Amino acid sequence: MRIPLEPEAVDAGLDALFWPRSVAIVGASAREHAIGHSLVANLQAFGYRGPVYPVNPSASQIRGLAAYPGLPEVPGEVDLVHLVVPAAQVPGLMAQCGAKGARAVIINSAGFGELGDEGLRLQHAFLHEARRHGIRVLGPNCQGIINTDPSLRAYCNFTNTLPAAGGVSLVAQSGGVGGFILQGLADIGVGVRMYASNGNGCDVSITEILRYYGQDEGTRVVVLYTEGLADPAAFLEVARAVTARKPVLAMRAGRTERGAQAASSHTGALAGVGRVTDLVFERAGIVAFDDEGELIRAAMAHATQPAPRGPRTAVLTNTGGPAVIATDALVSHGLGVPPLGDATVQRLRAALLPQAALENPVDVIATAGPEHFRAALQALLDDDAIDALLVAFVTPSFTDTQAIAREIVAASAQQRKPLVCNFMTDLTQERFRATRAVLQDGGVPCFAYPGDAARALAALWRGPRLRQRPEVRPRRLAGIDAARARAIVDRARALGRVQLDAQDVYALLACYGVPLAAAQVVDDPQAAAAAARAIGFPVVVKIDTEAASHKSDVGGVVLGLRDEAAVHAAVSALQERLAGLAAEAPLRFLVQAQLSGGQELIVGASRAAGVGHLLMFGLGGIHVEVLGDVVFELAPVGPAQAAAMLGSIRAAALLEGVRGRPALDRAAVAEVIERVSCLVQDLPEIEELDLNPLLVWPEGARAVDARIRLAPAATPTPG
Amino acid sequence: MRIPLEPEAVDAGLDALFWPRSVAIVGASAREHAIGHSLVANLQAFGYRGPVYPVNPSASQIRGLAAYPGLPEVPGEVDLVHLVVPAAQVPGLMAQCGAKGARAVIINSAGFGELGDEGLRLQHAFLHEARRHGIRVLGPNCQGIINTDPSLRAYCNFTNTLPAAGGVSLVAQSGGVGGFILQGLADIGVGVRMYASNGNGCDVSITEILRYYGQDEGTRVVVLYTEGLADPAAFLEVARAVTARKPVLAMRAGRTERGAQAASSHTGALAGVGRVTDLVFERAGIVAFDDEGELIRAAMAHATQPAPRGPRTAVLTNTGGPAVIATDALVSHGLGVPPLGDATVQRLRAALLPQAALENPVDVIATAGPEHFRAALQALLDDDAIDALLVAFVTPSFTDTQAIAREIVAASAQQRKPLVCNFMTDLTQERFRATRAVLQDGGVPCFAYPGDAARALAALWRGPRLRQRPEVRPRRLAGIDAARARAIVDRARALGRVQLDAQDVYALLACYGVPLAAAQVVDDPQAAAAAARAIGFPVVVKIDTEAASHKSDVGGVVLGLRDEAAVHAAVSALQERLAGLAAEAPLRFLVQAQLSGGQELIVGASRAAGVGHLLMFGLGGIHVEVLGDVVFELAPVGPAQAAAMLGSIRAAALLEGVRGRPALDRAAVAEVIERVSCLVQDLPEIEELDLNPLLVWPEGARAVDARIRLAPAATPTPG
Repeated sequence: MRIPLEPEAVDAGLDALFWPRSVAIVGASAREHAIGHSLVANLQAFGYRGPVYPVNPSASQIRGLAAYPGLPEVPGEVDLVHLVVPAAQVPGLMAQCGAKGARAVIINSAGFGELGDEGLRLQHAFLHEARRHGIRVLGPNCQGIINTDPSLRAYCNFTNTLPAAGGVSLVAQSGGVGGFILQGLADIGVGVRMYASNGNGCDVSITEILRYYGQDEGTRVVVLYTEGLADPAAFLEVARAVTARKPVLAMRAGRTERGAQAASSHTGALAGVGRVTDLVFERAGIVAFDDEGELIRAAMAHATQPAPRGPRTAVLTNTGGPAVIATDALVSHGLGVPPLGDATVQRLRAALLPQAALENPVDVIATAGPEHFRAALQALLDDDAIDALLVAFVTPSFTDTQAIAREIVAASAQQRKPLVCNFMTDLTQERFRATRAVLQDGGVPCFAYPGDAARALAALWRGPRLRQRPEVRPRRLAGIDAARARAIVDRARALGRVQLDAQDVYALLACYGVPLAAAQVVDDPQAAAAAARAIGFPVVVKIDTEAASHKSDVGGVVLGLRDEAAVHAAVSALQERLAGLAAEAPLRFLVQAQLSGGQELIVGASRAAGVGHLLMFGLGGIHVEVLGDVVFELAPVGPAQAAAMLGSIRAAALLEGVRGRPALDRAAVAEVIERVSCLVQDLPEIEELDLNPLLVWPEGARAVDARIRLAPAATPTPG
Repeated sequence: MRIPLEPEAVDAGLDALFWPRSVAIVGASAREHAIGHSLVANLQAFGYRGPVYPVNPSASQIRGLAAYPGLPEVPGEVDLVHLVVPAAQVPGLMAQCGAKGARAVIINSAGFGELGDEGLRLQHAFLHEARRHGIRVLGPNCQGIINTDPSLRAYCNFTNTLPAAGGVSLVAQSGGVGGFILQGLADIGVGVRMYASNGNGCDVSITEILRYYGQDEGTRVVVLYTEGLADPAAFLEVARAVTARKPVLAMRAGRTERGAQAASSHTGALAGVGRVTDLVFERAGIVAFDDEGELIRAAMAHATQPAPRGPRTAVLTNTGGPAVIATDALVSHGLGVPPLGDATVQRLRAALLPQAALENPVDVIATAGPEHFRAALQALLDDDAIDALLVAFVTPSFTDTQAIAREIVAASAQQRKPLVCNFMTDLTQERFRATRAVLQDGGVPCFAYPGDAARALAALWRGPRLRQRPEVRPRRLAGIDAARARAIVDRARALGRVQLDAQDVYALLACYGVPLAAAQVVDDPQAAAAAARAIGFPVVVKIDTEAASHKSDVGGVVLGLRDEAAVHAAVSALQERLAGLAAEAPLRFLVQAQLSGGQELIVGASRAAGVGHLLMFGLGGIHVEVLGDVVFELAPVGPAQAAAMLGSIRAAALLEGVRGRPALDRAAVAEVIERVSCLVQDLPEIEELDLNPLLVWPEGARAVDARIRLAPAATPTPG
């Protein structure tokens, strides 16, 4: 029944949850529409194979079943218990569950962590009991589970959609959303394997359920809904293992919420809310959706069709316009509709009606019969330059549409290439309902609109494409002095510093071999002039103070100083003008080689709860604000990911050389990204880091401004 | 029955097409499933109120109706004739139609313009006859029309979807797409008013049908499908008049096709295929869609709901998660979900259950009854800071869902604000089907998914928002010498020139007051040196030849010449190095003031068939290729459109001043766009024009490079 991902991953507690041998409902009710009634009724209606024990102190039977005053009085063994009782009773009942030998408990009742401290106290109390007895808990404040396996038929859930058995397993944080996805799958005829909605999620997590579905061989596709990941790193590890075996489709909501936390760096501000979840999904090979209808329709395609080997799609139609729409949608969702090769065109010419269009889309025309469809489908399945098929099928009254449907089913049943069908008909007519039944019973995913069919097919390709991306192999680059870097950070934290000063920023970056414009930190005009002479002219002078984070905004930067006298004068003038700042802390100055002619880039990192750091790369300088042309990755990255980041910004052509400009040193920039990745991996207390601008030339790259902020010392840091 | 847009627009021919008093089918057939049979059967099945005359030389009756050997033998008057006969017979039969007094003919037969010259000859022949008799022709190669008006019930169409009567009228270029939109509307319970698919469109055009629907008071919403506009200017004029009166929803397909025509300018290349249709839709106030499902669902919302006055939306729900999804979708499609004002929150607090969430989304919670829904709906309808309502309604088994549905219907029926419903339920249960019937019969648009409901609501706001944009009021700016410009173009065309040389480009732009870097065209080093002295140093020298359109690619540009000797030397060197080009035509040189420090922009124009010119604005220089950050408008533009173009690029903040940089002279740039607009309006034979870069400073803007290409003289030019 199950293929373990790893031997130790077999989880007996989740077995009791999803494969209960018997179910007791504590709080069962004779009152119709009460949750404690629906639970009993649903188990009956769904044909649960095990014994059901309603528990109710004042009823002797409920829905024809013997009821018991308490758990201890239940005569048989109890595997799974539903608790539908006031919250205050739950801790005591959990102890009874333990005494009775239950292995899993579903707490449908609300009134716990979602209500604040008193509820949290109750939650801790029942969890303590559950742990003591080795009981796994789903919920509280949740719907429960469903397992449609014919040998079990467990509907331990109080909602009212009774799904058909099938291969899609669903886990949803929100029962409301889980419910309508379940309903949506039922509405389009997609069978379900297992369902779970875990509510407050105090014990059994979405990650564990995902792992469990990954092990279940009856689960062909996993659908997941979340409003945020509690432990992204653990989720990522499990999800990668599951997607290697079966597709995982997911939707994250709360996209447009804006976090209240003010981020002071570009990287933090641009990352926004939810970016981590998106990146985790992407790296895990999860197919993510913004549109729940598209997710549900994609689940239908995944439930019966194999993954394509590539994006090359043939459109086969018996009518023109819808094929145009399908082609638009295929191409704009990442698939190609390439011309067919000569051999296939000749096969089609020999087999189809003279008026047929032999290009891609292939239009067999409305009068085509089953033999024409069969020949065209076979030719396209045999064509090695075609990876996937979209059939746009209208039902002309003068053709044998059921026979045509059987040909489409036969092609789909070969499972050589994915096939989806845009089936356009009038279902008020019996003959066309019968045609649809042929397609549906044959496992052909049918969509009413060509665009929906195209997007479902495109979704089939997104998982394999994500998994084709190179593995993450972070390198330990030469020239890294991690011990010295650690000492710098520890000292700064000991001094209570959050924003590092220029001296520390320079030193820290140097420890990781990040190339920097030559510079020295000085206190007065004389030292500045001497430093400039050592660095070489022209130089730029910047004030170095935590108070002036955007230095140019306070006029703390003087450019183009070409001799010692100019440097001296500039520093003297800054001392005078910014004397107000000096009252807080002594003014210091960074004298830096003034580099010119390079392209301005930005490389940054920002800490993300539960998953280490995000790395950012993009166009730098004022273009960060003006264009926001930046991309993100999860740290750590290897050379492949760093190179991919360079190629993913909109302005990527700027790095490759354009209009006679030489190509810029992409290798140097990618290495800077890798070095920043190493730095934040070693120093998890770094909250935010920006190199902006990082200048890049045809040879070499150097950061000319950098900022590093640490997490306040109170913040717990991983690692 | 009809409100004329303008008195002369009443079109008797289209009346005969859409309101036929009698219908003859020439080519009627007794053979089931033949088109000539379906036409008769459909008229009967739909309950057509007028007489139907099958015409067939060898049958005495068809489907119980008397059949006639020819049109002349038909006893009564014939208003509309279907021709379902071999193409070669059509011209002769058209003459018979004229003799019989028919006012409109639908040619369902194919075999005309779509097959090439012979077919075109037949098309011309029947059109000649039709014109002679004042007959309007729909088709050929088309499905026909439907009019569901209860007094008529005309189904002059061979497809097999029999729509319910309602307020949506549909016109589609492709019968296949028209058919599935019709089916899609039927599937979700949206009633149809009129339908037309015009096939080859040799006479009655989509524009005429749109105008007709605009005049029809039974049409509440128009849905339009096209693969390209034959006469965009005429369409725009009509569409603007129609959208002032009722919503027009449209989809254009063929988006991903790439035109074969190579465009040599940036403006031409970036405009791409279909841009004109998009801009025409936008300027006409048409709500455009990429997704046919979204279009169909939006039609449902438009069919019963008023337009919102603004984007401020309240979400009312009795379950949590779906409201989160709805909010995401609303915000990402241009609506807002603002916090509610104190007065409304207090009204809600007084009326709702204690556990209700009073924020926006308002969650009345699952146990809420009809009285809670009523109070919440009324409070939100009364709140002047709310423009639209989305109700996410699940059907808990323990509530009176039909009573709740009646409250939602009552709120929708007030027609004060648009209301859409995300109705999530199990329709296999009779009580919930009854609940849906209450909503549907009450005209509440119901969607199974929250995102679909949100997108349909967002579509309701798009039309009003487009119509709120300022009117186009092109100005005739001072300093334009149109006569001189006309002479320059005429002379160039007389000389067979296509790419204008620098002299003409400069002169032409100067005629329209486009500010340019000071420059002179010269033939030799001596003249160049003299010109440079007159202009002032530094200067740049560029070769001026049609062969070197991207001058920097052939090394034909020398920058930073700071004295006369340098200019002399540079021109001599160019003469020597580019001697090969001189063999074709004498080399000439542009000596130009070298301007610096400005932001590089691009302003361009390119001719678009049928609609004059497109104007383009964006970031210039190499950023055109690297970022493609450009926007388009239809010429002519007034100051409002020019200013809007400046504000619409992604990098708009660059013009407004960012990070302490001064704001750039947006007024000067907008005026350049207006001047280019005047230029191409006056000189329609200009094929492409690029000012790239146009430099802009805090004060002033000047073009430093420009190219103008004329249409080849053979090309017919409008105007």
